[in-house]
Amino acid sequence: MHILITGAAGMIGRKLTERLVVDRALGNQPVDKLTLTDVVQPARPAGFSDHVKTRAADLAEPGAAAKAVSERPDVIFHLAGVVSGEAELDFDKGYRVNLDGTRALFEAIRKSSAEAGDGYRPRVIFTSSMAVFGAPFPHAIPDDFHLTPLTSYGTQKAMCEAMLADYTRRGFLQGVGIRLPSIVVRPGKPNKAASGFFSGIIREPLAGEDAVLPVADSVVHTHASPRSAVGFLLHAAGLPRDQIEPHVNLTMPGVTCTVAEQIEALRRIAGDKVAARIRREPDALIERIVSGWPQRLEARRARALGFQVEDSFDQIIRVHIDEDRGGSFVA
Amino acid sequence: MHILITGAAGMIGRKLTERLVVDRALGNQPVDKLTLTDVVQPARPAGFSDHVKTRAADLAEPGAAAKAVSERPDVIFHLAGVVSGEAELDFDKGYRVNLDGTRALFEAIRKSSAEAGDGYRPRVIFTSSMAVFGAPFPHAIPDDFHLTPLTSYGTQKAMCEAMLADYTRRGFLQGVGIRLPSIVVRPGKPNKAASGFFSGIIREPLAGEDAVLPVADSVVHTHASPRSAVGFLLHAAGLPRDQIEPHVNLTMPGVTCTVAEQIEALRRIAGDKVAARIRREPDALIERIVSGWPQRLEARRARALGFQVEDSFDQIIRVHIDEDRGGSFVA
Repeated sequence: MHILITGAAGMIGRKLTERLVVDRALGNQPVDKLTLTDVVQPARPAGFSDHVKTRAADLAEPGAAAKAVSERPDVIFHLAGVVSGEAELDFDKGYRVNLDGTRALFEAIRKSSAEAGDGYRPRVIFTSSMAVFGAPFPHAIPDDFHLTPLTSYGTQKAMCEAMLADYTRRGFLQGVGIRLPSIVVRPGKPNKAASGFFSGIIREPLAGEDAVLPVADSVVHTHASPRSAVGFLLHAAGLPRDQIEPHVNLTMPGVTCTVAEQIEALRRIAGDKVAARIRREPDALIERIVSGWPQRLEARRARALGFQVEDSFDQIIRVHIDEDRGGSFVA
Repeated sequence: MHILITGAAGMIGRKLTERLVVDRALGNQPVDKLTLTDVVQPARPAGFSDHVKTRAADLAEPGAAAKAVSERPDVIFHLAGVVSGEAELDFDKGYRVNLDGTRALFEAIRKSSAEAGDGYRPRVIFTSSMAVFGAPFPHAIPDDFHLTPLTSYGTQKAMCEAMLADYTRRGFLQGVGIRLPSIVVRPGKPNKAASGFFSGIIREPLAGEDAVLPVADSVVHTHASPRSAVGFLLHAAGLPRDQIEPHVNLTMPGVTCTVAEQIEALRRIAGDKVAARIRREPDALIERIVSGWPQRLEARRARALGFQVEDSFDQIIRVHIDEDRGGSFVA
């Protein structure tokens, strides 16, 4: 099996790559070829002696998407995109990368299959986001809640979801869209996502550094670990088509809690001194963006389809300490 | 006031033009300039001595949209698009005209306003469709029903609705999206719309010709006359922004009835002989497309905002006889 990952240099892309290198299989099928693309050339995974290609590719550039599908990947994990804060600050870039890049990928699949006449129709796992939903919300968002995004990022994701469903219905590809909750704890440096602080208030204190909390403690949000996000992607790749089509866009489950509950979980696991490293600095732009996001996701369909997630925010913190910090933290 | 109509050569475009020529005003403001564009040059309206421009323009062509907005229309009625049957048969054309053309218009507005620095932010009335909805449906579609289109046409309209809301939210234009029910009775020749028969079974018999009914008599659908469609457009142009934003896409009201009830209304108005001109010829493609469409629309928000429509299908037939047949029919 040949797997293509776009956005492979990103956090989820790297963790997905690591997992595939360990598993060497997807479902029951051995992975014998891995192609990794991103706007910067992704790192070559260690420990994978089989055929691996890494390539710098901006899918919105002419020819880039055609090249990416020319070697007929069986499964494409399309993770490439700019994050919410960046898409809001740079309108052109958000539409170019998140909409045009995705459309270029879908079009390249359709056109190269038509030209070759080989019936090429890969499974395409597209990472969407709960930012497709916009306020006002019911207590919890049901699977069939309407999409009224209140950010450009959410708009671009909603547009791509619609295309994914149409290209699937037309038989050009086999799409599954997975709407991720906030993925925490993100390792490494803060990125431009407006949701970045949900990770920062756990990651920085565990590393012995101060963290900024730009919203109120009472903010409710739904989270999943990077490990769960990778699990969602792999599970989506193996779902039988008749269980998901024609409504191929699925809201993923998560752990719902307040910021205060996040901090309490941190205190339970790492102690008062660590939890005291969080500094309150309200930020109007972040507060406005976050206030337009859903708080609780029902995700009944995804749970029924076997998607799994942590049971508590404590577990999410432990995944971070285990996976990204070698099991320890700065007390 | 300067008004631009795209798709002005189409049926609704022509009726909207006629109405503006008669009214010479939109709301309380006199119309002193009218620009009409379409892929074929629209006819010059009779009886409008003021400044009128007609122009052939394909908005998806480079520069066409910029030219269309360069003269700063205050209100843009964006009606241009290919219909559902055509968008389903010609995938490329549907996306090019319905998605790319609309995006080019929105982008031209944003960019020319930024370049000129003149704060240009026109009211843009976008005609969407109930084809944004996809089965399975509740008994009646509420205003906040999710968009899961089952046609490429519906997908393109849903994507444009999302863009319209985002461009409005970002302050680039003042959008209102109006989801039209089926507009009947369409005058003139049949077009490629899958919904064409809803008009055909009334129009052809009244003209003394046979009509083909490709679906079952029990099919339920929601209709409005072309006169109501024009009324929706004009009403949308005058709505205060704070009554519609940020959820700028509105489902329009209509008359809900079965095909059998349409035929009964025709019989009441025109007699048995006219109604007998309908021939049943089931068509699998049309039946499949129509089965994915909504049947009943609640349209509570639009009714509360003052959008008005006929009370019965009889009235819809009378509008056709009055407006398109000079008051008579072939008995």
